[in-house]
Amino acid sequence: MRLDQRAQSDMRKIQLETDVNKHAEGSVLISVGDTRVLCTATVEEKVPPFLRGKRHGWINAEYAMLPRATAQRTGREAVRGKQTGRTMEIQRLISRALRSVVNLEKLGERTVWIDCDVLQADGGTRTAAITGGFLALVLAVDGLIQSGKLTDTPIKEGIAAVSVGKVGTELLLDLCYEEDAAADVDLNLVMTSSGKIVELQATGEEATFSRKEMLDMLELGEKGIEELLHAAEQSLGASWWYVGEEVEHK
Amino acid sequence: MRLDQRAQSDMRKIQLETDVNKHAEGSVLISVGDTRVLCTATVEEKVPPFLRGKRHGWINAEYAMLPRATAQRTGREAVRGKQTGRTMEIQRLISRALRSVVNLEKLGERTVWIDCDVLQADGGTRTAAITGGFLALVLAVDGLIQSGKLTDTPIKEGIAAVSVGKVGTELLLDLCYEEDAAADVDLNLVMTSSGKIVELQATGEEATFSRKEMLDMLELGEKGIEELLHAAEQSLGASWWYVGEEVEHK
Amino acid sequence: MRLDQRAQSDMRKIQLETDVNKHAEGSVLISVGDTRVLCTATVEEKVPPFLRGKRHGWINAEYAMLPRATAQRTGREAVRGKQTGRTMEIQRLISRALRSVVNLEKLGERTVWIDCDVLQADGGTRTAAITGGFLALVLAVDGLIQSGKLTDTPIKEGIAAVSVGKVGTELLLDLCYEEDAAADVDLNLVMTSSGKIVELQATGEEATFSRKEMLDMLELGEKGIEELLHAAEQSLGASWWYVGEEVEHK
Amino acid sequence: MRLDQRAQSDMRKIQLETDVNKHAEGSVLISVGDTRVLCTATVEEKVPPFLRGKRHGWINAEYAMLPRATAQRTGREAVRGKQTGRTMEIQRLISRALRSVVNLEKLGERTVWIDCDVLQADGGTRTAAITGGFLALVLAVDGLIQSGKLTDTPIKEGIAAVSVGKVGTELLLDLCYEEDAAADVDLNLVMTSSGKIVELQATGEEATFSRKEMLDMLELGEKGIEELLHAAEQSLGASWWYVGEEVEHK
Amino acid sequence: MRLDQRAQSDMRKIQLETDVNKHAEGSVLISVGDTRVLCTATVEEKVPPFLRGKRHGWINAEYAMLPRATAQRTGREAVRGKQTGRTMEIQRLISRALRSVVNLEKLGERTVWIDCDVLQADGGTRTAAITGGFLALVLAVDGLIQSGKLTDTPIKEGIAAVSVGKVGTELLLDLCYEEDAAADVDLNLVMTSSGKIVELQATGEEATFSRKEMLDMLELGEKGIEELLHAAEQSLGASWWYVGEEVEHK
Amino acid sequence: MRLDQRAQSDMRKIQLETDVNKHAEGSVLISVGDTRVLCTATVEEKVPPFLRGKRHGWINAEYAMLPRATAQRTGREAVRGKQTGRTMEIQRLISRALRSVVNLEKLGERTVWIDCDVLQADGGTRTAAITGGFLALVLAVDGLIQSGKLTDTPIKEGIAAVSVGKVGTELLLDLCYEEDAAADVDLNLVMTSSGKIVELQATGEEATFSRKEMLDMLELGEKGIEELLHAAEQSLGASWWYVGEEVEHK
Repeated sequence: MRLDQRAQSDMRKIQLETDVNKHAEGSVLISVGDTRVLCTATVEEKVPPFLRGKRHGWINAEYAMLPRATAQRTGREAVRGKQTGRTMEIQRLISRALRSVVNLEKLGERTVWIDCDVLQADGGTRTAAITGGFLALVLAVDGLIQSGKLTDTPIKEGIAAVSVGKVGTELLLDLCYEEDAAADVDLNLVMTSSGKIVELQATGEEATFSRKEMLDMLELGEKGIEELLHAAEQSLGASWWYVGEEVEHK
Repeated sequence: MRLDQRAQSDMRKIQLETDVNKHAEGSVLISVGDTRVLCTATVEEKVPPFLRGKRHGWINAEYAMLPRATAQRTGREAVRGKQTGRTMEIQRLISRALRSVVNLEKLGERTVWIDCDVLQADGGTRTAAITGGFLALVLAVDGLIQSGKLTDTPIKEGIAAVSVGKVGTELLLDLCYEEDAAADVDLNLVMTSSGKIVELQATGEEATFSRKEMLDMLELGEKGIEELLHAAEQSLGASWWYVGEEVEHK
Repeated sequence: MRLDQRAQSDMRKIQLETDVNKHAEGSVLISVGDTRVLCTATVEEKVPPFLRGKRHGWINAEYAMLPRATAQRTGREAVRGKQTGRTMEIQRLISRALRSVVNLEKLGERTVWIDCDVLQADGGTRTAAITGGFLALVLAVDGLIQSGKLTDTPIKEGIAAVSVGKVGTELLLDLCYEEDAAADVDLNLVMTSSGKIVELQATGEEATFSRKEMLDMLELGEKGIEELLHAAEQSLGASWWYVGEEVEHK
Repeated sequence: MRLDQRAQSDMRKIQLETDVNKHAEGSVLISVGDTRVLCTATVEEKVPPFLRGKRHGWINAEYAMLPRATAQRTGREAVRGKQTGRTMEIQRLISRALRSVVNLEKLGERTVWIDCDVLQADGGTRTAAITGGFLALVLAVDGLIQSGKLTDTPIKEGIAAVSVGKVGTELLLDLCYEEDAAADVDLNLVMTSSGKIVELQATGEEATFSRKEMLDMLELGEKGIEELLHAAEQSLGASWWYVGEEVEHK
Repeated sequence: MRLDQRAQSDMRKIQLETDVNKHAEGSVLISVGDTRVLCTATVEEKVPPFLRGKRHGWINAEYAMLPRATAQRTGREAVRGKQTGRTMEIQRLISRALRSVVNLEKLGERTVWIDCDVLQADGGTRTAAITGGFLALVLAVDGLIQSGKLTDTPIKEGIAAVSVGKVGTELLLDLCYEEDAAADVDLNLVMTSSGKIVELQATGEEATFSRKEMLDMLELGEKGIEELLHAAEQSLGASWWYVGEEVEHK
Repeated sequence: MRLDQRAQSDMRKIQLETDVNKHAEGSVLISVGDTRVLCTATVEEKVPPFLRGKRHGWINAEYAMLPRATAQRTGREAVRGKQTGRTMEIQRLISRALRSVVNLEKLGERTVWIDCDVLQADGGTRTAAITGGFLALVLAVDGLIQSGKLTDTPIKEGIAAVSVGKVGTELLLDLCYEEDAAADVDLNLVMTSSGKIVELQATGEEATFSRKEMLDMLELGEKGIEELLHAAEQSLGASWWYVGEEVEHK
């Protein structure tokens, strides 16, 4: 039995609240247990310099934690004058993950910024940011189609992410902070609705693991991804239509 | 009639949700109309170097806006590598305002950090941050007293802040963003529950104003402060007890 | 009686030395008591990006203190790699104040930079910077008109600034450093030659004040402003002509 | 057939030159094909603040590329004033990997710095840095034992790293730059001499992959790791003794 | 004949105004022609970490130009967030030069900061800073002796600095800005009152020079140094006593 | 006799290995004793903004030390977020030196970047960087001519640099680190193949020196320069042809 009475393969409670920001083209507040991440999508009608004139769009994610998202207050990166390596690593991961399910040519010469700000952290903030960021992206695409700027969805399929870990000899799905801190091995899995892997990062923290353990963790992760994608589909309702479907002009 | 049908002296709807963060010693989500600021209080059992050994506490506020708090996305300060002048000016204001109603000697050698993060901006974010930050501070003091670290409240009285502006020839209470952008004169008022002024900043934006106009704006502001303090008292309930009251050990 | 034998409503000695820099389009060394600020105006024939093509000029002020302007040496901001919040707050104030008395359309698509460098500080450096910066600006405008780049002065009226404070129970005009350090309330007033307020910042330093006290301080400040503007007019001589007067081509 | 006539499962030529720096406690110049990384180990007799007094050592790696390590010159990070996200991500990976095979308690209260500077890049710089960095670390440990500062080796087993990729429909071991740039999927594998995984990062670049493909890539990677560890053992000669062996005082 | 009617071996007019800052332990405003540098000396009763406990003092100089010291406004280093290479090179030169004539052991465990701020630049700012900085240093030493903190002067002899250049085929002493900009060779000479060289930097600007030319420039420089040291002695009056003289307790 | 058995006027062993980097347009690994500097030349077909449209090329050098080039590990400038004053001073020196022997008009509107990275330091890194950087430059020019981008060499003559010092009463050529650390006077000499001086920097380190000593040091330096230029000519072989020779199209 886990700290919060979950079984090994249980996800924490998933909540997805959409349209939580009146300015953003898409916005979602995702809660996975006590982890809460505010994700907004901003559509900008230009692309970074290296893509100019290539009839190609771009997706760029940024990630941050509010100072008191954590048990101990963490100093503000803007005050320190730079982002930490951890932050940079995470926002690169989110960006890559979301780009993998978008047809960037169909997106047209525009950038979608995905801002993921952690309001409260309890493990799994990067995976929650990917799952929530994807929903914000879909909502922004919905808006582009409603307004006639796009006629065809650039989104190829759904995507979600989850963590799995090895704590002692147990393999556990969806680690909370205490479990994460105690884990010898930490695996983050990003997967699509068709069951393809987008990113798998398995890391021994001053420890190692076998191929068998990795495969068992992968299996647990797949179960979590399915639940997350189910919740995403429920939450988006009609907007889910834009996930990998040809859109007829309504 | 104003954009949102308010009269000149009407405040927007005030909402104060407490205990919105499981880690912080005090936390409040304040909404004033569509402006939403998440305020957390963190108690740190040490003081900055210039106060060490002086039997004196400190209060330090930080302020930031999420990138998509605004109508257009604003680049992240952590990415640019420094805080803007506007941010620094605002967090200095919040810090000063909160210190003015706290007996820093009674606080003891500890620092309370007040983090004010704007989730959504629609005018008046700095004044909402002061009002919300004060509530987070009171909740943190409540905790210090409940845990026996303090026996007597260091809070001298209540405090709140509001904006007033001159738009065309009209003086308006509690400006929303459109009004603020159109205002010739902008006044921010910070006031205590006993009706004392803590800070008054009246600024002509490429414009000037008379003493009479300033006094009329001050009067409007006082009305807003009263409503804010009333809402604060309702919201804090029993914790309001710690605002300027001698606390007997319970 | 004050430290330096002044009465409550006495200004310190005001000295304004013009044309102290052979390169600048306008330059003034202002002394108010022992506070000495070197102010230069630089005319740049372009505007910041956000104003390009809008037939609109701009005024931008920067402020700094030499390391040993202060009683204790202050580390150089260029060495620390960033400006302090105090510096940013002050230069934003100076910029706003000067823009309030300039018709930016009449200025044409050019920027006037006002650099205010404190050679020696003894209280009231920001207000001296505004007063001195205004004179440097007028001298630069004089040059623009003499050279035929402008035919009509963009300056609407004169402007000056002064501090007032509450020390113990006394209200004092034009605080020197020791008084400023001891003050419970600090008021900075920026006012025009027609008696209009441009900016009023009244701040309780871990203290509060009443409306009555604010009005009394305002009155003291008005007296100081008059003396400063009188000195400014004396100092500028013929160039004062360009303060708010239609200029016939000479 | 690949660009350089290799078969799919062929490594490029591995060269390991030791003791290439007269100052460092350990140093290795590793070449894998045209990729060349200079790795030095520095022993510092103190630990970072968070470990002080915990009878625990630390290993910290830093990574950089010389400006002309790349086909196009890359601007120097010291000139830009910050490390890129890619650099930070890589040095975090190297640090974690090396710590996983070291018993940090046995290392004692000291830090080993591993500096990995890429002299010439042709794909696989991060994996070469891990392999080369490990050798530098072993040489530094050898020195600590020779000088009597350690009596027992803290190194638990050997470690090496290699890249695998999916280019078109082919899975290829040890990608050179052109292959890496063309790859849809990129897998970096860090593995120990006992065949345990330390880190596996499989990333779709705007693409996805199946579990089967991941397992096939893993198998290719294992072959590469074996060859690298064999070369490492040859290169270190007597010093290999310190990899995971109890050391009797000589 | 030169631009300003000087002969080749003429210095510009030298002016040395002492005690120009009421806070600093020593202060001098040096003018050499239109170049004006404000030099202050600050005595700090501690030394940098690398000297702690070594019964050894330190001298550290900093240099900066006000933005409008130059014909075109130069952006403020504090705004750009770093000092330029030119600034760093100059302040290292000033520091080294002043240390060469001070017995740092006799100075005791204290640091003298020499701040050199260029109010107006017209060539030769670094050499004026050395000459002026030395005077500020002597005045600070005078104070240390008057107050009994030192009984014996740590200053070994006088020091001054001057520039010489080759413009076309002419060798010229003490270049003004226009001459400096046109010079093919630029020589900066730092020399003591006993005629010893402290620093000689001769630089071809996209040009070269012969040993003969260097010696001729050196001779011109020596003449300038003598005049500067004579002016320094006149200016310091009784304080010159502390330059290299054993001081009896008065 | 010196530490390494050299006579006063002996250079250390000079080694010049060319074409050590497969990407760079020119590359040299220079060793002078145990000092080893990797120099690469990069040709970029554009010039800095201040030269655009002036039919003029540019040469820009950058310098850095690997962290463990030194006896004690030196923190990485990219981690500290800025280059030290020493680094900036050195790269300005290298840039100036190389520009003095290049006809920048003949170079055409292109920039040659010279990157000098110290792999191992044992005194004289800046002078080795100039000597090695010059060879990399010649090799890049060779390439420009071979490819027909230039028909005529822009290089006017050869250049090299060496250090000389006064240690105790001895004058020594080509100081190693221990000698450099003990030296009272340090002279760096940059000279051309026709015996002209490009730069001479003679510095007393808390010491002074006479004109006679400077001339004796200069003479020692000239001997070293000759040996360096001889080695350079041997090393470049046919490419030496491009040093100051009219090139017929081959």
